[in-house]
Amino acid sequence: MLKPLEDRVVLRVKVEEEKTVGGIVLASSAQEKPQTATVVAVGPGKTTPHGNLIAPALKVGDTVIFEKFSGTTVKVDGEDFLIIKASDLLAIVE
Amino acid sequence: MLKPLEDRVVLRVKVEEEKTVGGIVLASSAQEKPQTATVVAVGPGKTTPHGNLIAPALKVGDTVIFEKFSGTTVKVDGEDFLIIKASDLLAIVE
Amino acid sequence: MLKPLEDRVVLRVKVEEEKTVGGIVLASSAQEKPQTATVVAVGPGKTTPHGNLIAPALKVGDTVIFEKFSGTTVKVDGEDFLIIKASDLLAIVE
Amino acid sequence: MLKPLEDRVVLRVKVEEEKTVGGIVLASSAQEKPQTATVVAVGPGKTTPHGNLIAPALKVGDTVIFEKFSGTTVKVDGEDFLIIKASDLLAIVE
Amino acid sequence: MLKPLEDRVVLRVKVEEEKTVGGIVLASSAQEKPQTATVVAVGPGKTTPHGNLIAPALKVGDTVIFEKFSGTTVKVDGEDFLIIKASDLLAIVE
Amino acid sequence: MLKPLEDRVVLRVKVEEEKTVGGIVLASSAQEKPQTATVVAVGPGKTTPHGNLIAPALKVGDTVIFEKFSGTTVKVDGEDFLIIKASDLLAIVE
Amino acid sequence: MLKPLEDRVVLRVKVEEEKTVGGIVLASSAQEKPQTATVVAVGPGKTTPHGNLIAPALKVGDTVIFEKFSGTTVKVDGEDFLIIKASDLLAIVE
Repeated sequence: MLKPLEDRVVLRVKVEEEKTVGGIVLASSAQEKPQTATVVAVGPGKTTPHGNLIAPALKVGDTVIFEKFSGTTVKVDGEDFLIIKASDLLAIVE
Repeated sequence: MLKPLEDRVVLRVKVEEEKTVGGIVLASSAQEKPQTATVVAVGPGKTTPHGNLIAPALKVGDTVIFEKFSGTTVKVDGEDFLIIKASDLLAIVE
Repeated sequence: MLKPLEDRVVLRVKVEEEKTVGGIVLASSAQEKPQTATVVAVGPGKTTPHGNLIAPALKVGDTVIFEKFSGTTVKVDGEDFLIIKASDLLAIVE
Repeated sequence: MLKPLEDRVVLRVKVEEEKTVGGIVLASSAQEKPQTATVVAVGPGKTTPHGNLIAPALKVGDTVIFEKFSGTTVKVDGEDFLIIKASDLLAIVE
Repeated sequence: MLKPLEDRVVLRVKVEEEKTVGGIVLASSAQEKPQTATVVAVGPGKTTPHGNLIAPALKVGDTVIFEKFSGTTVKVDGEDFLIIKASDLLAIVE
Repeated sequence: MLKPLEDRVVLRVKVEEEKTVGGIVLASSAQEKPQTATVVAVGPGKTTPHGNLIAPALKVGDTVIFEKFSGTTVKVDGEDFLIIKASDLLAIVE
Repeated sequence: MLKPLEDRVVLRVKVEEEKTVGGIVLASSAQEKPQTATVVAVGPGKTTPHGNLIAPALKVGDTVIFEKFSGTTVKVDGEDFLIIKASDLLAIVE
């Protein structure tokens, strides 16, 4: 199990559904677009120079939108996770 | 529905009206210019290192001017939205 | 009407008078020089991390000097305005 | 023995197990991926400008994930260690 | 009249005396060197994020040394002035 | 004698022992690696914007590890010393 | 006389003695090395955003080591001085 440090969160990235036309799988367009993911772990937050702990405004199970190319992909027990700073998440999808 | 995080806002971008001459649609000039958009969701604000939450001075329904090339476009239910930091908005149009 | 956000101001830029010689309009020199403009709207100021609102030391009607290439030009009802951060203004002309 | 300074930690890096196929050792893929390591020493933390000492939220024996290319490798008594800032660690593996 | 904003000052730059040899005016060497100028206006200072106004430690009439290539030259009533941040001045000449 | 300023320390760098094979001195590998040094003087620390003096957590005689290419080498009475910021030291060797 | 502003100091740079061999003056090596200088004037210090004045820990007459290529050389009454920020001085030589 991954316990993210500071203001990081661990995400399980949702595989983008490929569009299919007549059974042929079409790759996504080359233009990179943000992806959605599910939050599986939330770090305790970052302690500021003033000694305040600022916790991420997220909870396990939230569906979030993040920019591609942010964070670091790690493989745990054969599954890929993304460890990303909470400040690199854009929005919660409800 | 999108709930923007921190000091981000979600915008519905207004499509710029193309000028037409005798029925021929003319593309906008190559020179990029700011666009207007409608605010559809406002984040709670960003907590500063001193523990103050600074909320964006915006409300849902505001028409705002933003710089092109700022923010991230996301598609929700087939509609494009722009998620952008409140500090990248220039002015409210009244 | 434009209501600038944070520490931004809206300027109506004064067109530099072209020199004319014998009726021929001469373009300004290629060397860019600062311009003057009239303040038409002033933002409420920027809230610092400490929670202080620092208002721009400007008022509507002030004539100001600004650097070329600063700010963003927007067109409202056919007229060009410049939205610029107050900190990018150099001086008030009295 | 190494006593890391400020917010640095000393890691004993776990050698990635090479995959073997029929006895042939296969090198890891060229794509760099994060590694795990064991914490062997933790610095006292960094004193902020406000005079607060912020200690790393780690203890000796923790297994951590870090980005490759972070930190500095040092050799002590023939063994390699990695000295890295605590803020460059991504997560604790439990 | 120019009223500099924030921590800026307005300088009247002293023209460097060209050396002459036998009546021939020799241009200064190509190697740029700092120049002296007279302070003609001093801004009120900059308000810090903590709400403190820090006034420039200068007064009208001071002769100062500044680096070439700092500040912005403006022309008022046919005379050139330099608007420069007080922090870009090096020393007062007494 | 050198009295380092602010948060700097003066180091006497230990010459890396060259490996010899059959009397032939072999140069160290081209791959740069951190070095050890002895602390010979410690600065008083740096005063933060809040007026706190943060003293380096080092004492004369400590053996420290530092990154190559950090600091500035100075020659005093024919001997080389390294003046380096305390924050560029990685660990104390005990 | 030069009165340095903020946290700057004025230095009289000591000319490095050229080595001579049999009367032939040898230029210093191409490898730039720090130089020593004498402090001739010390600025009042810099006021931090918190309103604290932090004075340089130097006094007139100190011999200091500084990095080449720091500061600005100015000529006053035919003599060269170096105006440099106190934080760019490395150590006092005693």
